[in-house]
Amino acid sequence: MMPTSGMHYAPTHKPNPVVKSGEFIFAAIGLDHGHIGGMCNGLIEAGATLKWIYDPDPKKLERYLAMYPTAKAARSEEEVMEDVSVALVASANIASERCPLGLRAMAAGKDYFTDKAPLTTLEQLEDAKAMVNKTGKKYAVYYSERLHVESAVFAGQLIQEGAIGKVIQTIGMGPHRANPDTRPSWFFNREEYGGILCDIGSHQIEQFLFYTGAKDAEILSAQIENYNHANYPGLDDFGDCTLKGDNGTSGYFRVDWFTPDGLCTWGDGRTFILGTEGYIELRKYVDIARSNRGGHLYLANHKTEQYIDVEGKVGHPYFGQLILDCLNRTENAMTQEHAFKAAELCVKAQMRAEAVKGIVRV
Amino acid sequence: MMPTSGMHYAPTHKPNPVVKSGEFIFAAIGLDHGHIGGMCNGLIEAGATLKWIYDPDPKKLERYLAMYPTAKAARSEEEVMEDVSVALVASANIASERCPLGLRAMAAGKDYFTDKAPLTTLEQLEDAKAMVNKTGKKYAVYYSERLHVESAVFAGQLIQEGAIGKVIQTIGMGPHRANPDTRPSWFFNREEYGGILCDIGSHQIEQFLFYTGAKDAEILSAQIENYNHANYPGLDDFGDCTLKGDNGTSGYFRVDWFTPDGLCTWGDGRTFILGTEGYIELRKYVDIARSNRGGHLYLANHKTEQYIDVEGKVGHPYFGQLILDCLNRTENAMTQEHAFKAAELCVKAQMRAEAVKGIVRV
Repeated sequence: MMPTSGMHYAPTHKPNPVVKSGEFIFAAIGLDHGHIGGMCNGLIEAGATLKWIYDPDPKKLERYLAMYPTAKAARSEEEVMEDVSVALVASANIASERCPLGLRAMAAGKDYFTDKAPLTTLEQLEDAKAMVNKTGKKYAVYYSERLHVESAVFAGQLIQEGAIGKVIQTIGMGPHRANPDTRPSWFFNREEYGGILCDIGSHQIEQFLFYTGAKDAEILSAQIENYNHANYPGLDDFGDCTLKGDNGTSGYFRVDWFTPDGLCTWGDGRTFILGTEGYIELRKYVDIARSNRGGHLYLANHKTEQYIDVEGKVGHPYFGQLILDCLNRTENAMTQEHAFKAAELCVKAQMRAEAVKGIVRV
Repeated sequence: MMPTSGMHYAPTHKPNPVVKSGEFIFAAIGLDHGHIGGMCNGLIEAGATLKWIYDPDPKKLERYLAMYPTAKAARSEEEVMEDVSVALVASANIASERCPLGLRAMAAGKDYFTDKAPLTTLEQLEDAKAMVNKTGKKYAVYYSERLHVESAVFAGQLIQEGAIGKVIQTIGMGPHRANPDTRPSWFFNREEYGGILCDIGSHQIEQFLFYTGAKDAEILSAQIENYNHANYPGLDDFGDCTLKGDNGTSGYFRVDWFTPDGLCTWGDGRTFILGTEGYIELRKYVDIARSNRGGHLYLANHKTEQYIDVEGKVGHPYFGQLILDCLNRTENAMTQEHAFKAAELCVKAQMRAEAVKGIVRV
C-alpha cells in the first residue's frame, strides 16, 4: 500500500439521505485542503445537492468538477453568494481565510460549513460570533477526526450508554505524515495554517470537550516545537497540550508530523477515553501491524475486555443532522457554542505555546 | 483469568547468573510491597544468594521464607546489618521508610536496593545523596516498569540501534487496579506512599529520562485528582505530568487507579516513544483483547510497520549488571545520578500538584 499524506483524506460511505434531491443545495468554495472532499462526500451521502464549486485556481476546480459531476463551476464567489437556492457554503480554503469567507457567506444569508481549524485568531472568533448573532446563521466545523471516523462516533454512543461510567480524561494522539515537498506553501506559514495546536490540535480539543462533556477548559500547558524540519522554519512539527475541563475532567493531546514512511497510512491516530468504570481506545485509521484500515475500538470495563470492529457499521450521522439543523434551525449535529469553544481553546493553546517560544507573528 | 492487583507482581524468568552461588550475598528487609518478590527473583536469577529476610510482621516473614527456602529469618534489622557477608540490602518497605532504612544500610557498609519510589521528600533525597557521597555505597532503585519488562528493555536496545532516529517524546500510561479493600492502610496515606506522581509516577519519569536521554527536566504541568474514591481521601486515583527535558525532548504521562475488573491483568501499561524516524509502542502487560500476557512491542519507522513478540527473548540484564556494579564499583546497570534524578522529579511533580490542590502534609 502506498503511503498517503492524509491531505486528501476523503472518506466515502453508503448513502443515507435525510432529504430528497434538490431539497438542500450547497456550494463548495475554496479547495485548498483536501478535506473539502470529505465534507462534500458526507453532505452528498446525506442527501445534499452540490450545485456550485468555486476556486480561483482552475486546476483545483477541474479536479473537483471531475469528482462531482452534478456540480458546475462558478465564475466567481459572488455568483455563488447571489444564488438564493444555495443554503450552505462549504469551504476548505487556507485556514486564515476561512473566517473571512464565512462572514461573507453568512452575510449573504447562507449557513457556513468550514474545515477545521475554523479560524486562526481570537479577533476572527469575535467576528464570527458577532455575525452568527446578527444573522442567525450557522458556522459549522468539519472536525473530521471525530465526525468522520466511525470508531469515534461509536465511542460517543458507548459513553452515552454508560459503558465506561463517568468520563474523567482523554488522551489523543494525532500524528500526520509530513510529505512537505507535496504540500503548498501555506502549510508552512504559521499566519496561514494557524500553528499546529490550532490546526490539527483543533480536532483534539473538540474531542476532549465532546467526550468529557466539558463546556470550557483551562490550558494547563501548551508547547510547540520544530524538532526536525529546519528547512521549514514556519512548521511546528510537534505540539502538545494539557487541559482541565470546567467539570473537573482532564485532557492531554499530542499532535505531530512524524508518521514514518513504513506505516501503511497517513497517521496512527488514537484516542484513549478513561472513565470511572472502564476505558476505550480508538485506533482510528490503522491497527498497527494488525490491520491497514480504520474502525477499531477496544473496550474494557468491569464486565468485559473486547475488540469491536465498527467499520461500515456506524456511519456518520453528523452530516444528516447538519442538513436537518440547517433546515429546521436546530442544533442536533453540534452546538454553535461547542464548535466555537473548541476553536477558541485551540487558538489560545497555540498563542500560549508561541509566547513560550517568543514567536511574534507578522 | 482472575484479575490481580499488581501488588504482588513478581516476574520469574530463567536464570542467567553472573556470579556463582555465595559470591554475592544479599538480604531482604521490609516486605510491605509485593515488589520485593520481583526484586529478589531478579537478583537470584542473576546469581545472588538471599541469606536473610526480615520484617517486623511475622506473617509477611513466613510468606517470603516459604518462597525463598535458602533464606533464614533474621531476628532483627541489626542482625542483618552486622553480618559483614551481606553485600546488599533489598527493601520494599513503606515508601516513606525506604530512605531511612537505606541510610542505615549504607552506614553499615552495604549497597542498598529499594523499591520505587525510592524516597518521598527532597530532604530524604539530600540525606541519601550525602550518604552516598560519604560511604561510596549505592542507592539503587527497582524501577520495575522498565527494568523488569522485556518490551521496555528491548525498546532501549532498538533506540540504541537507531531504529526510530532521535527520540523526541515519550507518552506513558500507568493504570493500576485499585482493589482498595485488599491494600494496607499506608497505600492511602499520602505521607507514607508519597502521592501518586511520586509512587507509580516514578516509573514514568524514569522511563522518560531513560528513553529521551535527558539528564534533567522541567515540570511543565503536574496534577493529582481523587475522581472516584471518596472513601479514601488520601488516595490520588489520578495524576498526570508534562515534562521538558534539558535536551529539548518532551514527555507526558498519566497514572491512575482505574483498571476495570474486566481486564485480564492489573493494568494496560503502555509506553509510546516518538522518534524523528519512527515510533515504538509497548503494550507491557496485556495486548488488550488480543493477548493476556505481556511482551508486545510495535514498531513503525521508514522501512517497516511490525509487531515484535519479545516474551522470553530479551531477559532483564539489569539484575546481573547491578550485581557486577556492586562487585566492581561500576555503573552499568543505572547511574546513581539517573536514579536520583528520577526520584527528585517525581517528588517535585507531586509537590507541585499538591500545591495546586492546596494540600498541606502533616
